[in-house]
Amino acid sequence: MNIGQPDIVTPDIGWNAIKEADMKVLEYSHSAGMESYRLKLVEFYTRYGIQLTHNDIIVTNGGSEALMFGMMACLDAGDEIIVPEPFYANYNGFAQSLGINIRPITSSIEDGFALPPIESFEALITPHTKAILICNPANPTGYLYSAAELEALGEMVKKYDLYLFSDEVYRDFCYDGRKHLSVLAIPGLEEHTIMFDSISKRYSACGARIGLMVTRNKAVLETAMKFAQARLSPSTLGQIMGEAFIDADMDYLDQVRIEYDKRRQLVLARLRAMEGVVAPTPNGAFYLLAQLPVDDTDNFCQWLLQSFQLDGETVMLAPGSGFYATLGFGKQEVRIAYVLNEVDLNKALDCLEEALKLYPGRTINNNQLTNHR
Amino acid sequence: MNIGQPDIVTPDIGWNAIKEADMKVLEYSHSAGMESYRLKLVEFYTRYGIQLTHNDIIVTNGGSEALMFGMMACLDAGDEIIVPEPFYANYNGFAQSLGINIRPITSSIEDGFALPPIESFEALITPHTKAILICNPANPTGYLYSAAELEALGEMVKKYDLYLFSDEVYRDFCYDGRKHLSVLAIPGLEEHTIMFDSISKRYSACGARIGLMVTRNKAVLETAMKFAQARLSPSTLGQIMGEAFIDADMDYLDQVRIEYDKRRQLVLARLRAMEGVVAPTPNGAFYLLAQLPVDDTDNFCQWLLQSFQLDGETVMLAPGSGFYATLGFGKQEVRIAYVLNEVDLNKALDCLEEALKLYPGRTINNNQLTNHR
Ligand SMILES: Cc1ncc(COP(=O)(O)O)c(C=O)c1O
Ligand SMILES: Cc1ncc(COP(=O)(O)O)c(C=O)c1O
Repeated sequence: MNIGQPDIVTPDIGWNAIKEADMKVLEYSHSAGMESYRLKLVEFYTRYGIQLTHNDIIVTNGGSEALMFGMMACLDAGDEIIVPEPFYANYNGFAQSLGINIRPITSSIEDGFALPPIESFEALITPHTKAILICNPANPTGYLYSAAELEALGEMVKKYDLYLFSDEVYRDFCYDGRKHLSVLAIPGLEEHTIMFDSISKRYSACGARIGLMVTRNKAVLETAMKFAQARLSPSTLGQIMGEAFIDADMDYLDQVRIEYDKRRQLVLARLRAMEGVVAPTPNGAFYLLAQLPVDDTDNFCQWLLQSFQLDGETVMLAPGSGFYATLGFGKQEVRIAYVLNEVDLNKALDCLEEALKLYPGRTINNNQLTNHR
Repeated sequence: MNIGQPDIVTPDIGWNAIKEADMKVLEYSHSAGMESYRLKLVEFYTRYGIQLTHNDIIVTNGGSEALMFGMMACLDAGDEIIVPEPFYANYNGFAQSLGINIRPITSSIEDGFALPPIESFEALITPHTKAILICNPANPTGYLYSAAELEALGEMVKKYDLYLFSDEVYRDFCYDGRKHLSVLAIPGLEEHTIMFDSISKRYSACGARIGLMVTRNKAVLETAMKFAQARLSPSTLGQIMGEAFIDADMDYLDQVRIEYDKRRQLVLARLRAMEGVVAPTPNGAFYLLAQLPVDDTDNFCQWLLQSFQLDGETVMLAPGSGFYATLGFGKQEVRIAYVLNEVDLNKALDCLEEALKLYPGRTINNNQLTNHR
């Protein structure tokens, strides 16, 4: 349960598109991506009420490259980007390689990892601050931002003339009837918002390496295009798949969401039945961050691997500390990815339950958190 | 003739491998690339007398990403890299995005673009100099470095403790019986050399986006792996193709080389029959850089597009200035990519010949260059 590799089957329509492609030469595509694919993407976003032109889109080698391009286009070395923590750990790698500094603002498990107050962002803004980066819904917390939170962020980026980066690679996975609100759908933010998307999780096509950078800010797009041109082209094979996916049975994404939702309910119910475990409800993505009654989840996860077995098996979890930029934070938290079927999930949770009983570093959790929010 | 997109057919074996892959889930691969592919690559390089282990290899999203990783792993912002010019223009894009400064050393058409004297490199070395970057055989000149030149570079990088980056994406295309010498094959340079490779040109699979960074320097590999991990994985589809290509009929690369060689001879013969045109013999790759009797090749190429036609067609060439970092250089040069069949090449060269007669900015070329070297 420690990595974000879905087990969901990749839709056949993608494989078939490649089998039927019948190209003689596997050529570079346009550096911004095949025009036919970008036009199809415009159609895709229209389904969500987002109006774009294909020129607002750069197709990238995964959402990862899109995030790099966003940073490269909007920030220089030495500039700062404010990110609510816990956050997707690879943001660190992208920022570091560009000499960009991440300034974290801690969101807390007590609030279910809601957006910290706008004043705490304002307190961090310096002349070097160029952007706010959110992940919506979030990896690792599963938190889904509300319209009010996004609008407050929007007001702030307008006020301080910052970019609002929104990593929406999990946008299709929202539960309990909640709707995802993209930063692209907020009027008046056209010059500020840059959205990052990916087909990795949406269609369980991580190995296709197709992501997107989307913005209506022409200057940002133009700068990003220079970097896109330098690396010539995203994967042509991946784009052929990606274009076909958009024609996939519209029920596919519903079915996938229903499957993840079942697992989410199962994991939550099981965790909450374990003494001392605190697990806020995640409203999106396929992760949740739980607090465990242990001294240090780095030690606990290590111990799970080296010293624990239940029927010859153990469980792997991602220690919380990796998702915090603030040293010492997240020591009681673990991220759980529910990318296993219910049978395997139950087995993994059996392991966790048993392990928590046996772990020598178990603490009496005197935290007053409730399981609800 | 202005871009490096080959017209050669991509080997069927690659397409078949994808059709037969029969994967349920298109997963991320290992961040360094599929182990099976890296093991196969070890076998591939053995054919060229290069002994590696699969741990010396990081599979990347094209040679482009490999070059980025090399720079990211070995240089910090503000550091310098010395590159003989004319050079592949996208090196600028990679360096700029990382705040790295390229220091050019001009090689001259009179010497057929041979390596400039080692003293001219030494004169540029500062405490910020971290690496020398060569392209062998070179885009845009087609120059193939001799063993003596490479050994001299090797001595220098050892003396000044620099990295020697060698972009060998055209390594399979060498003519007149010449053999390519990889920097990886030079003994004693293990800690200094980083080689960049790609399947884009080798198998005419540009859209697969598969490249390689290869080094025996463990510290460099380890740092590069951090960046590789941050972006998760190279294209799984591309790797399946790449692995299959290595089993392609060994004659394939011979046939492709013979085809390019025919074109090379044709282009050279035609160019040399044009008055005032100087074209040194390229011994590798599928490019050559020719000097034209015109005032400014940027203007000339523009004029070709806008004001010239022969039988309703024109020819596109890449102006030389784009390949020089030194302002004002390359103004009489154009790069020609012989990635067209002989019929189309002849038509393009008919255009060029005619255009040179009509172009208003034609100069009497009083340059004493000969066509031979
Ligand atoms: C929050 C987040 N952003 C971006 C990515 C990048 O994914 P990819 O590069 O496969 O599109 C991931 C992958 O796990 C992720 O969790
Ligand atoms: C000299 C050189 N290096 C690297 C590349 C990058 O190619 P790719 O990213 O497709 O492997 C090219 C492509 O034209 C090239 O000419």
